[in-house]
Amino acid sequence: MNSDQASLTGIRVLDLTQFEAGPSCTEALAWLGAEVIKVESPKGGDPGRRTGATQGLDGRWFLLLNANKKSITVNLKCSQGIKLIKDMVRRADIFVENFAPGTIERLGLSYEVLREINPKIIYAQIKGFGTGSPYEGNLALDTIGQASGGSMSVTGERDGRPLRPGPSIADTGSGMLLAISILGALYRCKCTGQGARIEVAMQDAVMQFIRGAFAEHARSGRAAPRAGTKSAAVVNVPSDIYSCKPGGPNDYIYIYPHRNKPEHWHRLLKVIGREDLIGDPRFETAAARVQNEKEVDAIIANWTRQRDKHEAMRLIGAAGIPAGPVLDTLELENDPSFEDRGIMQTIEHQTHGRFKMLTWPVRCDGVTPKIKPAPLLGQHNAEVFRDWLGLDATDIETLRQDDVI
Amino acid sequence: MNSDQASLTGIRVLDLTQFEAGPSCTEALAWLGAEVIKVESPKGGDPGRRTGATQGLDGRWFLLLNANKKSITVNLKCSQGIKLIKDMVRRADIFVENFAPGTIERLGLSYEVLREINPKIIYAQIKGFGTGSPYEGNLALDTIGQASGGSMSVTGERDGRPLRPGPSIADTGSGMLLAISILGALYRCKCTGQGARIEVAMQDAVMQFIRGAFAEHARSGRAAPRAGTKSAAVVNVPSDIYSCKPGGPNDYIYIYPHRNKPEHWHRLLKVIGREDLIGDPRFETAAARVQNEKEVDAIIANWTRQRDKHEAMRLIGAAGIPAGPVLDTLELENDPSFEDRGIMQTIEHQTHGRFKMLTWPVRCDGVTPKIKPAPLLGQHNAEVFRDWLGLDATDIETLRQDDVI
Repeated sequence: MNSDQASLTGIRVLDLTQFEAGPSCTEALAWLGAEVIKVESPKGGDPGRRTGATQGLDGRWFLLLNANKKSITVNLKCSQGIKLIKDMVRRADIFVENFAPGTIERLGLSYEVLREINPKIIYAQIKGFGTGSPYEGNLALDTIGQASGGSMSVTGERDGRPLRPGPSIADTGSGMLLAISILGALYRCKCTGQGARIEVAMQDAVMQFIRGAFAEHARSGRAAPRAGTKSAAVVNVPSDIYSCKPGGPNDYIYIYPHRNKPEHWHRLLKVIGREDLIGDPRFETAAARVQNEKEVDAIIANWTRQRDKHEAMRLIGAAGIPAGPVLDTLELENDPSFEDRGIMQTIEHQTHGRFKMLTWPVRCDGVTPKIKPAPLLGQHNAEVFRDWLGLDATDIETLRQDDVI
Repeated sequence: MNSDQASLTGIRVLDLTQFEAGPSCTEALAWLGAEVIKVESPKGGDPGRRTGATQGLDGRWFLLLNANKKSITVNLKCSQGIKLIKDMVRRADIFVENFAPGTIERLGLSYEVLREINPKIIYAQIKGFGTGSPYEGNLALDTIGQASGGSMSVTGERDGRPLRPGPSIADTGSGMLLAISILGALYRCKCTGQGARIEVAMQDAVMQFIRGAFAEHARSGRAAPRAGTKSAAVVNVPSDIYSCKPGGPNDYIYIYPHRNKPEHWHRLLKVIGREDLIGDPRFETAAARVQNEKEVDAIIANWTRQRDKHEAMRLIGAAGIPAGPVLDTLELENDPSFEDRGIMQTIEHQTHGRFKMLTWPVRCDGVTPKIKPAPLLGQHNAEVFRDWLGLDATDIETLRQDDVI
């Protein structure tokens, strides 16, 4: 027993994923300590490397989604390449892919084939639309999953058009759900020796994140509406963003004294210097504030407009009222607290040099995982083919000359 | 080895969570087969039961977040109640809580105390702001986590104010990340016998879902902007929602022929009857389409406006172009495909009667978990106190009379 041992020490993942949905899943496994081998085409690798890329370097999006992995190249269009994958499947615990529907089967790497090679394999897939859906053969990306999974219908101004939520729920959201089911199956495999086939569709995964909207729909009998800055599922006044100095695009603070906690409203009135309104029947109960929402909002905004969001947050938060400044990516990246706490880490990448990035944000025994930079294409060919398959330098050179890797 | 065995069969979870962030995590564990014991106050239980509640029944939001769990009541404000919890900790594998900061320690149920009782316990917590943050003691809800974690700053129209993404990323998003780390620690515990302390903060978890925005920020050097219907991280023309008949608030289809797949654009032109534009230099390359975005959008919209979104989806999707209709909660709930595939299930609840709801959307070995209705308050007192602690009916009646349960 080693108290420093990462959770998934010794687990081997064969990772045939690309773009974001699949890589976000396997990166989580890598951060928990699994050895994740990213299998890429010798011709350019994961196309996600080129998303937002400049000057021929891998794009930052790729670097954020592929940390702590190893990269090997395998040409899946030749039989020797497919044989290499099958040899590695023998030694793997987990296999993950998110190619277009039907691709992995055409390559001869279906679950039925791989479980013959390794009955304990956990075989995991992400689709856009689930097996049995009218659209099961269709292509999808995050925006498509968000449109068809309902999240766009509940994002936007009340009278505006549907908008894409900023978070990539169909991509990283699906990846996180898949990781949960993979880890459940891994635990079962440890207990019973049993493999598993795991599958998630983006459209289905998105619905998991808008259950508040489904609840509101059940209550009203109508499709859940868009709710601007608010949550469709609850009526709580005040609950909104309030404008702060100096009035930039993200100079707001969200304030949410809870409807079930009358003391929150009183605390807020004290902070904003309006003790005179404590006990005022127009505002005293949650129901009264709903009736007088415009006045409530005006009272608060009159105070927030005179402060910047950080000062407002210090005062309101310290008083015991739920509140949060609207922060943008620049403010988050420049806030030293995230690096102090290990949520962001400055790393040294071979071609990009030093930069700060997010790690897995969950602490285990007080610490977050240490980031290892995303691999260059094929960076770990020698190491992985040696450790997994016992190949030596000559074997590897032959594979390279034969365009297998 | 039983091929029907759920992944987490035999795992016991002591669940002191409330509202959404914590319950979404423990529900995932329940769906994977763990025995999840929801510990609630005898006075009304999880306050989430009352969110959106009508006629004194538990609200639908609660029912969606607490399926497949058992409920017991324990008064945590008396020493006998705390002793009951400690006795149960001896027999539990996982302990989860998301009370306000400092509450669990004040109750005498800190990690330091519980690991003395059960060194193998996996002790998991969700906070609004992480330990070490200037706001570590502050209260938070989903909206607060989304404001301060950056997701509001990247959601909304380009020139509009920040909006709340419809998906509850700070709540269910944090819950999913916590579940992943819990399951990693559970695997480690199975291998090494080692317990773990797991902690996630909503603000930190939200950032995990907007890495596309962080990538765009790294590329441009400026805070990632709001991008309306689009993804901030990639420039792809066309990629937007296009208006369909009959013009209702969600009558749109998202169309996304991929910039790296020239055949997608050609396929789209064929579907919309504009083969005449194949090879037109104004639109032929991804770069040319970026230059002529307005014309591109007009060409597509002219076709979509004459069709409803389902017809448009059938034609465009079948042609091999990434596309998805914007669907609202009513359309999703009424689409029989989800029930046919086991993603939604119709259940019978003791007080609500029959209704359809979402289950865990990931299939394991071809099936999704079967839903058991969310428990009534204290529904499983007799069963759980007997099975876990060996108490008989007389013991339980005494606890009830003493206001312990």
